[in-house]
Amino acid sequence: MKETTIIKPRKLSGFMELLPNQQLLFDNMINKIKEVYLKHAFLPLDTPVLELSEILLAKSGGEIDKEVYRFKKGDTDICMRYDLTVPLARFVAMNSEILHFPFKRFQVGKVYRGERAQKGRFREFVQCDADIIGNEELSLVADAECLKMVEEVFKNLNINIINQISNRNILFGFIEGLGYIDKVKQILTILDKINKIGRENAKLELKNLDVSDENIEKLIKIIEKRGNFSQILSEIENISINQTFQKGISQLKEVYQYLKAMDINEDKIELNLSIIRGQDYYTGTVFEAIIPEHKEFGTVCGGGRYDNLTSYFSDKKFPGVGLSIGFTRLFDLLLSNNMIKELSTSNIKLQIIPLGNTMTECLSLKNYFSNYFITEVSFDNRSFKSKMKDANKQEIPYVLIVGEDEVKSNLYSLKDMKNSTQYNFSKEECVKFIKNQ
Amino acid sequence: MKETTIIKPRKLSGFMELLPNQQLLFDNMINKIKEVYLKHAFLPLDTPVLELSEILLAKSGGEIDKEVYRFKKGDTDICMRYDLTVPLARFVAMNSEILHFPFKRFQVGKVYRGERAQKGRFREFVQCDADIIGNEELSLVADAECLKMVEEVFKNLNINIINQISNRNILFGFIEGLGYIDKVKQILTILDKINKIGRENAKLELKNLDVSDENIEKLIKIIEKRGNFSQILSEIENISINQTFQKGISQLKEVYQYLKAMDINEDKIELNLSIIRGQDYYTGTVFEAIIPEHKEFGTVCGGGRYDNLTSYFSDKKFPGVGLSIGFTRLFDLLLSNNMIKELSTSNIKLQIIPLGNTMTECLSLKNYFSNYFITEVSFDNRSFKSKMKDANKQEIPYVLIVGEDEVKSNLYSLKDMKNSTQYNFSKEECVKFIKNQ
Repeated sequence: MKETTIIKPRKLSGFMELLPNQQLLFDNMINKIKEVYLKHAFLPLDTPVLELSEILLAKSGGEIDKEVYRFKKGDTDICMRYDLTVPLARFVAMNSEILHFPFKRFQVGKVYRGERAQKGRFREFVQCDADIIGNEELSLVADAECLKMVEEVFKNLNINIINQISNRNILFGFIEGLGYIDKVKQILTILDKINKIGRENAKLELKNLDVSDENIEKLIKIIEKRGNFSQILSEIENISINQTFQKGISQLKEVYQYLKAMDINEDKIELNLSIIRGQDYYTGTVFEAIIPEHKEFGTVCGGGRYDNLTSYFSDKKFPGVGLSIGFTRLFDLLLSNNMIKELSTSNIKLQIIPLGNTMTECLSLKNYFSNYFITEVSFDNRSFKSKMKDANKQEIPYVLIVGEDEVKSNLYSLKDMKNSTQYNFSKEECVKFIKNQ
Repeated sequence: MKETTIIKPRKLSGFMELLPNQQLLFDNMINKIKEVYLKHAFLPLDTPVLELSEILLAKSGGEIDKEVYRFKKGDTDICMRYDLTVPLARFVAMNSEILHFPFKRFQVGKVYRGERAQKGRFREFVQCDADIIGNEELSLVADAECLKMVEEVFKNLNINIINQISNRNILFGFIEGLGYIDKVKQILTILDKINKIGRENAKLELKNLDVSDENIEKLIKIIEKRGNFSQILSEIENISINQTFQKGISQLKEVYQYLKAMDINEDKIELNLSIIRGQDYYTGTVFEAIIPEHKEFGTVCGGGRYDNLTSYFSDKKFPGVGLSIGFTRLFDLLLSNNMIKELSTSNIKLQIIPLGNTMTECLSLKNYFSNYFITEVSFDNRSFKSKMKDANKQEIPYVLIVGEDEVKSNLYSLKDMKNSTQYNFSKEECVKFIKNQ
């Protein structure tokens, strides 16, 4: 006999691992997201989890963030992807000659960030991204299509959201118009974190940047604007004659017009000028969806328009617009807040329990019933009583008891577990009965 | 303006990356595999891609295979999983108190092997595994269920296979019965590679192990047995009285009886005593499916019965049986041998092309048609002619032309691209027409 040392089984901390019934729910929800993406004529892409470090770190000029998983295999310097956008940029730059533009792709895949483990933060998580990439130019219809998809995705998931929408040019131009052309980014950074640091601290930081009290008030006032598109647009459209500001207004108006044409539910969107989205690369439409009953969840879906996807990999210009859902975190929040009901232990509709020497008949019946619903035969050697108890615990709705007499008569005992009623049915009658419930 | 250095976009070699239309096909086939697993009441599991090295390398006592991607993050010694079986073992050992046994799980996920890149070998590939795990004991019904699933999976994929089935105890016992108890593993290793090294070399190696000429002939003769179960079983069942041999015969008979009860297609299975499957851990049923018209593809699905899944992680015993499909390699073979037709560039059913200032109407129509089939609006600024050409190239079956007159009349020009016929239809008529084709 071989001696085996037992190693304590454990997984890496910060990695989500669901039980199978939870995973089934997770997968079902992922499929609902994909369904909407496919319906809107997006095609799937699946880039490798590993990329050359020079590609993944192109943006930072090779500087590595502590979060990124990076290692060497032989002489090759490799990173695990930390988002799906850089791989998309690499893919588009490599394949621009053969792709059809506007290129609509979705990708559902795991990304990796080795950040410090804390509740609700995962080092491996599934992102569900959809982007539309244009060749040199891209109509604002694309922005509207992404926003419409946000509505449909969450409707399909049965999750109530408000999608908060803005256009970065509005604030950008407003700040320019106030005369702070050189400080636009610094001011945006402060305004972006106002909810975190509080209004008074934000004012202080703006003051330190030499923004006048009057202008601080104007800035605070404009980013607190939110609500109905037509109303807010008419309130603000004339408060600045700055060109960038006016471009933002006109883009937002056009997008809104397309949204109405697509019959978007106006209760689920809001114009919200505080939406900035930290990253530099957004250049027009920006949005963040929240669950109004659970604002503490933060953004459950975000995205926007960017001028050039592939600037690090190509001389050509590929503008894009996209949305991204960090699904692992969202699922974790929904589950831990009892907002999705865990499935019962199984998705089995009918459990067949053999009594006596009837296993082959049970298997033959299983083969028949499987054409109609998920059916399983109890084939372990526990007692009949313990099998019945188990079916009950698993919330399996129907049990078929197959003894030797039943095999002779071709009539089987079907037990409806909800009300404990028992029927004597042929196999055809069983199907009819279960299908009609 | 920021100066950006252009980095040549490239991906790591040995990693498959499909174009989106191919990926759609890939995903559809994966879904067909999952469909069968779910139908048989298997639940999904999704373990992390990363595991602690001490877990993943437990089997080899910490010895690392050159193929494994292993690295450190801080002080943590991490590996990327190279199969889905060790993670399953770790999961079962960790969760055995809360799982329901027999535990039927499937996992479709990427695994990583940094082997030398060569045609048809991938460093990242998708495996589709399904296993049934028992607690202390597991009925042979589980083996039959896995074999039945192999049939159904490939039927669902529309791929013709032969599943070659054996039971390791037969050969094991036969060799024991010939008096080579101490050399069973060495002899099995030689027999396992007979197709690679050729019959004469195998004979030579057996001779070097001091196997007599007479016994070499007997060994060669038995592993060349293959064909119909009833026939081969009756031919061999009495050629050895060794207990292990007889256990193998009786297990195989029982499994075959269950397969018949489940109405397995006898043309798709064969008893084949040369099936050994290298790995040590198989202890009963073993099988390898091949595509008879493409034997050069090798095994497209394999699996078998093992005595104890969790021996490295637990004192308890969890016997199991499972099947595994290396799908990335299979897909690559099918595609490069023209055995699956690539989808046309898109899965779009209807393309709406605006003429003049009709974008909002087009979007509204898209919103309507999307309830019935995948519809897209051309929103880029190319010419009408180039859009029509493009729809043709993409093999989109229907095009709807929406000019300003059409908007006024609510009658649109629907073009059937196959035969270039044009109709004047209301939107309801369009749906009816397209749905009836």
